[in-house]
Amino acid sequence: MPAAAQALERLQDYLAACAERIDAEIALVLETEVEDPWLRGAISYHFGWAGPDFVPLPAGERPAGRAAGGKRLRPALVLLTYQGAVGEGGTGPADDHALAFATALELIHNYSLIHDDIQDRDLLRRGRPTVWSICGQAQAINVGNCLHAAGYAACLGRFEAAAGTPLDTTLLGDLIASLATASMRMTWGQRRDLTFETTDDVTVDMYLQMVQGKTAALISCATYGGALLAFNGTRAQAPVDAYAEFGRQLGMGFQIRDDILGIWGSESQTGKPSGGDIRRRKKSLPVLLALQEAAPAARSRLRDLYAQTAHLTSDEESDVRTILDECRARALAEEHAHQHGQRALAALTEAAGRPEALRENSFLSTLEQLTSFATTAG
Amino acid sequence: MPAAAQALERLQDYLAACAERIDAEIALVLETEVEDPWLRGAISYHFGWAGPDFVPLPAGERPAGRAAGGKRLRPALVLLTYQGAVGEGGTGPADDHALAFATALELIHNYSLIHDDIQDRDLLRRGRPTVWSICGQAQAINVGNCLHAAGYAACLGRFEAAAGTPLDTTLLGDLIASLATASMRMTWGQRRDLTFETTDDVTVDMYLQMVQGKTAALISCATYGGALLAFNGTRAQAPVDAYAEFGRQLGMGFQIRDDILGIWGSESQTGKPSGGDIRRRKKSLPVLLALQEAAPAARSRLRDLYAQTAHLTSDEESDVRTILDECRARALAEEHAHQHGQRALAALTEAAGRPEALRENSFLSTLEQLTSFATTAG
Repeated sequence: MPAAAQALERLQDYLAACAERIDAEIALVLETEVEDPWLRGAISYHFGWAGPDFVPLPAGERPAGRAAGGKRLRPALVLLTYQGAVGEGGTGPADDHALAFATALELIHNYSLIHDDIQDRDLLRRGRPTVWSICGQAQAINVGNCLHAAGYAACLGRFEAAAGTPLDTTLLGDLIASLATASMRMTWGQRRDLTFETTDDVTVDMYLQMVQGKTAALISCATYGGALLAFNGTRAQAPVDAYAEFGRQLGMGFQIRDDILGIWGSESQTGKPSGGDIRRRKKSLPVLLALQEAAPAARSRLRDLYAQTAHLTSDEESDVRTILDECRARALAEEHAHQHGQRALAALTEAAGRPEALRENSFLSTLEQLTSFATTAG
Repeated sequence: MPAAAQALERLQDYLAACAERIDAEIALVLETEVEDPWLRGAISYHFGWAGPDFVPLPAGERPAGRAAGGKRLRPALVLLTYQGAVGEGGTGPADDHALAFATALELIHNYSLIHDDIQDRDLLRRGRPTVWSICGQAQAINVGNCLHAAGYAACLGRFEAAAGTPLDTTLLGDLIASLATASMRMTWGQRRDLTFETTDDVTVDMYLQMVQGKTAALISCATYGGALLAFNGTRAQAPVDAYAEFGRQLGMGFQIRDDILGIWGSESQTGKPSGGDIRRRKKSLPVLLALQEAAPAARSRLRDLYAQTAHLTSDEESDVRTILDECRARALAEEHAHQHGQRALAALTEAAGRPEALRENSFLSTLEQLTSFATTAG
């Protein structure tokens, strides 16, 4: 097996093991924190652990593959950063705290998905009907809100029960505040993203600003929190800031990759109908790049198509694809993703203090691989 | 001036002074925590500080009276409980912390109002168009989410800046967790309340359960947090629990009073069109009591009217009013509110440790008056 394939397999194994730990934690949170059985059922459904009647499914009947409840990328980043930073001069052990923070972050990520699906009127998530399409918008707002609050409550509850050195007040405050601030930034990003639907002159810069909030804020919070816990007590600000910047750049690259898959990815890769982003006239990066780079006639045609309010027909979708291909919009977007990936790796190297660390420390080298894969649409 | 009118005036003065302090804190939070100008504008509009274009209004042009941005009852309860409990053997001073907690609680209360208005499709709040009716549901979901997260972020930020003894880790964790748990309970209450719309056999017990979550959880969190800060260091659990129970009972009574005003209150009292709760067939306590207590024919007619899905006509509204009057539903509901008020006062007396305290301690006597007024529909 070639080295790259081996590395991918190791990464996938790591992520799968991590997802299993996080899912066990989330299940515990639902059991201990979410008193209302209906809300617990709705949240379980969202994670793929209950059927569309919100009744728990036996382990064997749960959806697998892309239809399973997500990849748990964000909590894996908390744990990898924590473990990587501990190896590089962090103090540890705050393993339980890192796990609690990772779990909280995943809950907050998923609250935002449930609300995003309402806002975007998306009918499918991970190949299954979205929560709101089953129980209606009003109740789905509750489900998301419950998960949002559960994020903070769960984190605090699990912190209290955690083994290891208790957190000091400032650290505890910083961690929870970082979650709340990331959650606020997500609303700014989502606010802008929704505005784009009715704005004709969205620029690449406006897009990048939006992604800072919508995607990069929470991924940066993951690496920030993991590093903060690793350096607990020593309060080394420089590496913590560099880990946060690593997450921010990774988040940007990751969202751009997601945009590319939203146009050129298959349903099995995304869990959503192929080409849906074009039909819904989503102003994602490849389209914005084409609006900037395409030849005048093509640009004008693209602008007209995206100024409509209705979904695009399949003929119009073909037109868009031709225009994107002609101006190499995919390659241009891939270049953007690649650049963010490179900046992420530079920040990671800076955080680690010395370049060799990325080879010697297995967690940091896993982060390096993850960055390559997550910023490359393959 | 009679003693009762004097007491009411003193209470109103106290609440007005408290509202002014809290509003200054909220304005500071918006300025320092909410980076996105549009979201800041939308939140300001909700509080009555910006026009329907979400542009800030000069102080002189802001709506006054019932149309102003709410009474700030919940933060006043934090401060009164804190100050009352400090006087009765608490340690204090954590004045700044109490103010920060009170502000956070008000932000979380208001996030829930913004989302409730979406869920209930209410067009008016405090006599002005609701946020969603101006900017649409999708963006109003963001506005609420931003305010929800800002509650936690603001609390932590203001805690850090607070003068006085720094909070220890456990106390900080307890306070933030109490906010998050209350917020979760609100979603359970709201979940049930929405379910009632399509449930024919809602009982008084089911209603009381719903109100525990929807209203009492956050008011109980207010008195719990205020007491916890007052007893910081001594960790006297018994009075803190009694203060929490005081808030819970006060919250129940307060919601029942709100239900009574929702049927018999004037538009100037409620900021909403008079009788709206009947036309929208809201299964509030007076209606549930009538469904239980009315004569068989009236009960059957009432059940039929409330089994419809459309809004009631004005003839049907008159029918409902006649049925409610005939079975004395208002008096029965008032008796429920009164009982919760009495239980609240018993818990307050227990919390204070000795009955004289409610006369001697001006904050506790203000709480006593507030309880009488807030559980009496006058």
